[in-house]
Amino acid sequence: MSQGGGRSVAELAERLGARVVGDSKAVVERVAPLAAAGPRDISFLANPRYAAEARRTRAGAVLVGPGADLPGRTLLVVPDPYLSLATLLEILHPARRPEAGVSPQAVIGAGCAIGRDVSLAATAVIGDGCRIGDRSTVLSGSVLGAGVVVGQDTIIHPNVSVYDGCVLGSRVIVHAGSVIGSDGFGFAKDGERHRKIPQIGNVVIGDDVEIGANVTIDRATLGSTVIGKGTKIDNLVQIGHNVQVGENSLLVAQVGISGSTSLGKGVVFAGQSGAVGHIEIGDGSRVGAKSAVTRDLPAGSFVIGHPAMEAGAWKRAMAVFAKLPEMRRRLLRLEASRAGDKKEA
Amino acid sequence: MSQGGGRSVAELAERLGARVVGDSKAVVERVAPLAAAGPRDISFLANPRYAAEARRTRAGAVLVGPGADLPGRTLLVVPDPYLSLATLLEILHPARRPEAGVSPQAVIGAGCAIGRDVSLAATAVIGDGCRIGDRSTVLSGSVLGAGVVVGQDTIIHPNVSVYDGCVLGSRVIVHAGSVIGSDGFGFAKDGERHRKIPQIGNVVIGDDVEIGANVTIDRATLGSTVIGKGTKIDNLVQIGHNVQVGENSLLVAQVGISGSTSLGKGVVFAGQSGAVGHIEIGDGSRVGAKSAVTRDLPAGSFVIGHPAMEAGAWKRAMAVFAKLPEMRRRLLRLEASRAGDKKEA
Amino acid sequence: MSQGGGRSVAELAERLGARVVGDSKAVVERVAPLAAAGPRDISFLANPRYAAEARRTRAGAVLVGPGADLPGRTLLVVPDPYLSLATLLEILHPARRPEAGVSPQAVIGAGCAIGRDVSLAATAVIGDGCRIGDRSTVLSGSVLGAGVVVGQDTIIHPNVSVYDGCVLGSRVIVHAGSVIGSDGFGFAKDGERHRKIPQIGNVVIGDDVEIGANVTIDRATLGSTVIGKGTKIDNLVQIGHNVQVGENSLLVAQVGISGSTSLGKGVVFAGQSGAVGHIEIGDGSRVGAKSAVTRDLPAGSFVIGHPAMEAGAWKRAMAVFAKLPEMRRRLLRLEASRAGDKKEA
Repeated sequence: MSQGGGRSVAELAERLGARVVGDSKAVVERVAPLAAAGPRDISFLANPRYAAEARRTRAGAVLVGPGADLPGRTLLVVPDPYLSLATLLEILHPARRPEAGVSPQAVIGAGCAIGRDVSLAATAVIGDGCRIGDRSTVLSGSVLGAGVVVGQDTIIHPNVSVYDGCVLGSRVIVHAGSVIGSDGFGFAKDGERHRKIPQIGNVVIGDDVEIGANVTIDRATLGSTVIGKGTKIDNLVQIGHNVQVGENSLLVAQVGISGSTSLGKGVVFAGQSGAVGHIEIGDGSRVGAKSAVTRDLPAGSFVIGHPAMEAGAWKRAMAVFAKLPEMRRRLLRLEASRAGDKKEA
Repeated sequence: MSQGGGRSVAELAERLGARVVGDSKAVVERVAPLAAAGPRDISFLANPRYAAEARRTRAGAVLVGPGADLPGRTLLVVPDPYLSLATLLEILHPARRPEAGVSPQAVIGAGCAIGRDVSLAATAVIGDGCRIGDRSTVLSGSVLGAGVVVGQDTIIHPNVSVYDGCVLGSRVIVHAGSVIGSDGFGFAKDGERHRKIPQIGNVVIGDDVEIGANVTIDRATLGSTVIGKGTKIDNLVQIGHNVQVGENSLLVAQVGISGSTSLGKGVVFAGQSGAVGHIEIGDGSRVGAKSAVTRDLPAGSFVIGHPAMEAGAWKRAMAVFAKLPEMRRRLLRLEASRAGDKKEA
Repeated sequence: MSQGGGRSVAELAERLGARVVGDSKAVVERVAPLAAAGPRDISFLANPRYAAEARRTRAGAVLVGPGADLPGRTLLVVPDPYLSLATLLEILHPARRPEAGVSPQAVIGAGCAIGRDVSLAATAVIGDGCRIGDRSTVLSGSVLGAGVVVGQDTIIHPNVSVYDGCVLGSRVIVHAGSVIGSDGFGFAKDGERHRKIPQIGNVVIGDDVEIGANVTIDRATLGSTVIGKGTKIDNLVQIGHNVQVGENSLLVAQVGISGSTSLGKGVVFAGQSGAVGHIEIGDGSRVGAKSAVTRDLPAGSFVIGHPAMEAGAWKRAMAVFAKLPEMRRRLLRLEASRAGDKKEA
């Protein structure tokens, strides 16, 4: 994946706004992990957990934060090495866009408006009346229903299914196997049986959203299920009907958000956590891994557990949990001792 | 999505068996959420949580239950507004069935029996010897293996995979990306290695079952994994090999049922809950969100927790859980005080 | 699924290295579950839970372990009946391989190296520069990106997506709907927004790995996400970027392993459990269902809970958990009694 030729440390430093320690004339060709890097590679140290590995690396240069202590190394020092890594990767490993053009094996419905430089791969299926913006890509095996709208520079990876009438913004990335706009889980009890409530709404995905692999986002019963712009959703996440997710939120893998719940801006759900339906989770709230939010949360909350409680309270309670058998023994001993007193008295 | 023309409140009331309060001549065209509805829309109030929103709605009419207090509104009063919403949506927003017919870009194996008015979309793949009943639909990207049987009026959404020999009933809905009939997770330990147990059974899905998006249902080792008629399965649910699910059960998103476990009729598993293998869960049992059932449950159980216990007991224990640090302090204080006594004595 | 003709118990016993009790001339045609088996079927008893069912079976023969007590039955006695079941199924129900050959409706990119007797089904899409080893199969709807390498005798079920540059070994099985090589969930905070870290690594799957349905395995940021040979992964499992899974491990359904975590050899994660990122889990460790591992585990650990703790400690603590309300009452009673003393004194 090398881009040939390479770049000098000085050139990269200028692009990254980095201060150089060591040999600014060193040339690197690609980014590599600390352990695998050689003299023509640049690596990075963003997590102090890997400091020892960084001291042993053979990398020609290392991208680091201000406090890094790597004597004898050529360093590019930046305020936030993880953020600068994004730029560094874009420079040394520019993404290959699929070639523009409509494959003769793509299937395009009637009345579609396909923008300029769109890429539609073999076996992609575009329903009637879809609108696809300039430079967007639909890869093989993906299926857009009727009337789907896709913005510009959006990429839909293979085997994605988008149901009728859903709307995706610009610069959206949808990874393989995800489903957008399936029916919400809405049934009314009718004696022993469950009667289906038709789900006539849609899903609206804002600009700059990234959706992982095999994610499911249900269409609204009425109105729209909404994913706010800039939000990033990891693999195997479930979003119920009529959920509203604010901007720039993060939903880590295997999270589940039940129907009609709304999340504010900048909310984080850690892996395998969830929320019940019909609640409101305030801006900037954080939910710990595997936790279950069962009631409204004010902005800035940090909760853990099932049911989720204030994170500090949960940690303190869990610290005692492991001591429960000992506590019980001590309680019984106190009771016995007390009973002894009574008998004596 | 309006159907043009509209319907009078009187006409809808007759269809729904509703009592009208207010203007029975008002005309509405579509169903809309309380907050978004205008004078030509009908909305509904089924959850008291939204009563305030209902009082502010601009909807031309509101479908409500007997106790609703919405002065000055045109109301259609029914015993169960959520159940009547299903009928109302069917009247004002009838589902569009895909056009019948076999796409020239569908791929059909040898010896298939395709019923009348079946719809097979472009890139749908039907294996050898499949039988597909009248008016059923297989959408793009879905793949049926050899010898798959599909009943009448069943719809298979895009990118579904059904393995060889599986059987789906009539009026079944399978949402996009689901997998029916993959091999069960069966391995025998052979020294350090895991030897695959061939999985030669199949999956049998009863009539009127709905299966969400990206669900996985494994084929049986021998015999059949069975989903009973009328059962509804939400997105990203996992059903292990040889599981038996009774009629009219509900499995909410991200539930996992391990191999050879059987569920009775009308069982409910809430989101992200699960059951270990080889147990029996009685009719009408309910399992709380995120809970893990680890042993047989008699009919009518209601359990929560990991391991799942009687719901009331779990709630009472959780109420104490948050107080554990305080309890520990009080226990230590009692001990210290007691030790003081002893020293005095 | 009978193979016609049948086999004598004597012949099967020889193949399985089994001791026969009863009629070695009995002939059986297929393997069937205890409850459904008839006189021409052989069944098996590997789990003592089903002993009563075994006593009632009408099977012509039963494969059992050394201690089985089934008077009057024809038995094939082996040291490990579950392991021998694998062989028995292979004899009586040999797997049908898809016919070799490239479907005219498969789509093959430029510069691919396709081995002998490869099967590429209709609507399978093979990207430019792929290498596919002898006797491997890619079923309908599966999409391999550019430069994907597949070993020999590997089978890729329908609607699988493999991203550019990923590598699969020999005798690998990938079930339907799985995604291999999607971008890792890597974002750097940039003010309020999340900036994408390009994910330029790949996924490497070792020989003899089985991957369930709708699994997601993310490509590495740099380097490779690695699944060691012989490891078996159940449905709906999530593997984050840069995860390293050792050989012969088992990841049961709905497990999630966060980025950069490494698992040793022979590790078992039970259903719905997970691990945080950047930790090391030693060889042979076991993690209970629904548990969350939050720190390094030494080899041979057995942990349960959230956070995961030593399994015995967790079980003892959980045994007390249900008694918390009673403990609290007794503690308050002791305090009250103590306060009474003081007052008296």
